Amino acid sequence: MIDDREVVHAASALRAGEAGASTEAIARATWSVLAEPGDGVAGSLIRELGAAGALELALDAPSPADGRVDGSARAHRALAEGRARWRPRAQTRALVDALHGASQVGARLVIPGDPDWPDSLDDLGEHAPPALWVRGDARLLRATPRVAIVGARAATGYGEHIAAEIAGDLAAGGATVVSGGAYGIDGVAHRAALGVRGATIAFLAGGVDRAYPSGHQELFTRIAGHGAVVSELPCGAAPTKWRFLARNRLIAALGQATVVVEAGWRSGSLNTAGHAAALGRPLGAVPGPVTSAASAGCHRLLREYDARCVTCAAEVRELWGDDTQEASASRRQDPDRTRLLDALGTRTPLDVMEICRRSGLAPDRVRALLGLLDLEGILTRSDAGWVRAANR
Amino acid sequence: MIDDREVVHAASALRAGEAGASTEAIARATWSVLAEPGDGVAGSLIRELGAAGALELALDAPSPADGRVDGSARAHRALAEGRARWRPRAQTRALVDALHGASQVGARLVIPGDPDWPDSLDDLGEHAPPALWVRGDARLLRATPRVAIVGARAATGYGEHIAAEIAGDLAAGGATVVSGGAYGIDGVAHRAALGVRGATIAFLAGGVDRAYPSGHQELFTRIAGHGAVVSELPCGAAPTKWRFLARNRLIAALGQATVVVEAGWRSGSLNTAGHAAALGRPLGAVPGPVTSAASAGCHRLLREYDARCVTCAAEVRELWGDDTQEASASRRQDPDRTRLLDALGTRTPLDVMEICRRSGLAPDRVRALLGLLDLEGILTRSDAGWVRAANR
Repeated sequence: MIDDREVVHAASALRAGEAGASTEAIARATWSVLAEPGDGVAGSLIRELGAAGALELALDAPSPADGRVDGSARAHRALAEGRARWRPRAQTRALVDALHGASQVGARLVIPGDPDWPDSLDDLGEHAPPALWVRGDARLLRATPRVAIVGARAATGYGEHIAAEIAGDLAAGGATVVSGGAYGIDGVAHRAALGVRGATIAFLAGGVDRAYPSGHQELFTRIAGHGAVVSELPCGAAPTKWRFLARNRLIAALGQATVVVEAGWRSGSLNTAGHAAALGRPLGAVPGPVTSAASAGCHRLLREYDARCVTCAAEVRELWGDDTQEASASRRQDPDRTRLLDALGTRTPLDVMEICRRSGLAPDRVRALLGLLDLEGILTRSDAGWVRAANR
Repeated sequence: MIDDREVVHAASALRAGEAGASTEAIARATWSVLAEPGDGVAGSLIRELGAAGALELALDAPSPADGRVDGSARAHRALAEGRARWRPRAQTRALVDALHGASQVGARLVIPGDPDWPDSLDDLGEHAPPALWVRGDARLLRATPRVAIVGARAATGYGEHIAAEIAGDLAAGGATVVSGGAYGIDGVAHRAALGVRGATIAFLAGGVDRAYPSGHQELFTRIAGHGAVVSELPCGAAPTKWRFLARNRLIAALGQATVVVEAGWRSGSLNTAGHAAALGRPLGAVPGPVTSAASAGCHRLLREYDARCVTCAAEVRELWGDDTQEASASRRQDPDRTRLLDALGTRTPLDVMEICRRSGLAPDRVRALLGLLDLEGILTRSDAGWVRAANR
């Protein structure tokens, strides 16, 4: 169903990485055309047989060779269903278009085994993407630390302010800001990273040759120039609701931590947060006014997802254990000291027994504390008794 | 050192509860004069010997009778230090003044064993108060549920708004709002409870005959009239920094849950929250803008004290397990359904194979889903194919 010569010709136009236009790379590119994001049957087949072997099995007519997959009835049914999903898309035209589209925008294919392949995506198991299409600097996919900063499209001025502060601070400190390229928080996070000449990655829900939202066309061009615009979908693919949801798992998996800045009660950002939590990635949420609908999702994350409350970039760094500041030791004052100081004024001198009565402390204890506080210059002594030093 | 006849005479002026002017009640009143709040040595003695026996031991000259307390050297030293603290205050005048002060404002003494004594204070162990002085309706001390709502004196309009909403809602629902009578959040919480003719208790750090802050004189009069103003300190006692800190443990112990609405980074409300946490009481914190210093303490509670994020009265009720609303079951949509709907528009009819290509679903699956969605009226079918129903 796929004409190999035509595909190899188109693939050679790709600015390919080390994996180049190998059989494996072409097979993975083909899988990105055939299977919807997160197709676990495709993922399992690829893991067992390699992408090329899996493709052969997928597009062949059913045969005894199917015995190559684990022989349970369930696995056979899953394969049959997979075949039924993939075959309608198995057209040379679709693959060639994807390859041409990629070469036109200078996108390259990154696949497992490529030095730039981010191993953290392997945590997605059979739901890991077969390949990534990358416009820009693919090396960023492995640069560390990487932090996902996501949030509501309908962000408020408050949310945008905080997103810019946090993303800018983190990017200036060397972190790569990963987000989804949407209006609102995502866009602010990308821009803040670019603004400090920091690194940023935008994961799109359609092909990297398509600007969605179209108002971010120029932003994506800037990100591709200084960072990376990435998708698991081939060029030409339109973003769909499903693909947005699936894309969110890549943001969560690539980030070493995920922070949600603002999110409505049913925001897509909660989906990203849920993926991060499921992957065991640290999850942070920025609180806001409880009167703000744009913060309701963040408060939900704090309540229901055990997200950590983060209010600044330093607290986000703590999420991945980069806690360079010393934990502020909670200094406990001596309570007797407080009681003695409560008893004293700056005007009327008091004798020891009066201080005892007022403070409820024993004379010995009072004398000992008076001595210490005198040394510290906190008290002054006269013949009439003790007073607090006026300048303290 | 204490003249019994004069004290009994003064005590008879008290509008006493069932415990009345018993020896035990007078002894506990005396302890409230002698010992500073939270004096653990006094508390231990009272627990072992009863208040009267403990008082006798405390004010006698050291003797072999000291053997009545557990005989370790440490216990003896603690007793000796206690005696040295208490004796400077053991003056008949002080106790008589306290009793007269109480009778003047109509305060009564509530002690353990009294039907109104709140057992929840016993959780404070040796740091429980020997007695409470109460102006108003002492029965509220045992009414349930009781929720502590505290926060910053320097509250913002936002914090005051939320405190009023939450306290008013809870009080209207029958909860008793416990707070500290301070400016800011405390005052708003009391007022909101009074405003819905609900119950409220103010714990003061000085005697219940003293309005501190003085600007809340009228508020305390209203609370005494419709709720209760309570202190462990005798009438005439001035509030001190130490007594504010000690008072906070009573608020935390009386509340079945504690909620902090706004708090600065070093707010006294964090002290109350710390007591609640130490006592195993559920602790809630209301988030706010991370740009607001008045919410910094609340965010700290979320981060460092494992406080639960609460944004409304219903979420506060959940703190003590009064969750009358069903947990919103997170409805998971069938992902295939989403993918199929993504593939369809409202204008151009598509045939099954085209829907398969666009959605990445198998023909059988597409046909099954089309049937279901048709039944639900979400799709319409024509000879040319399927479209989404325009009105959905």
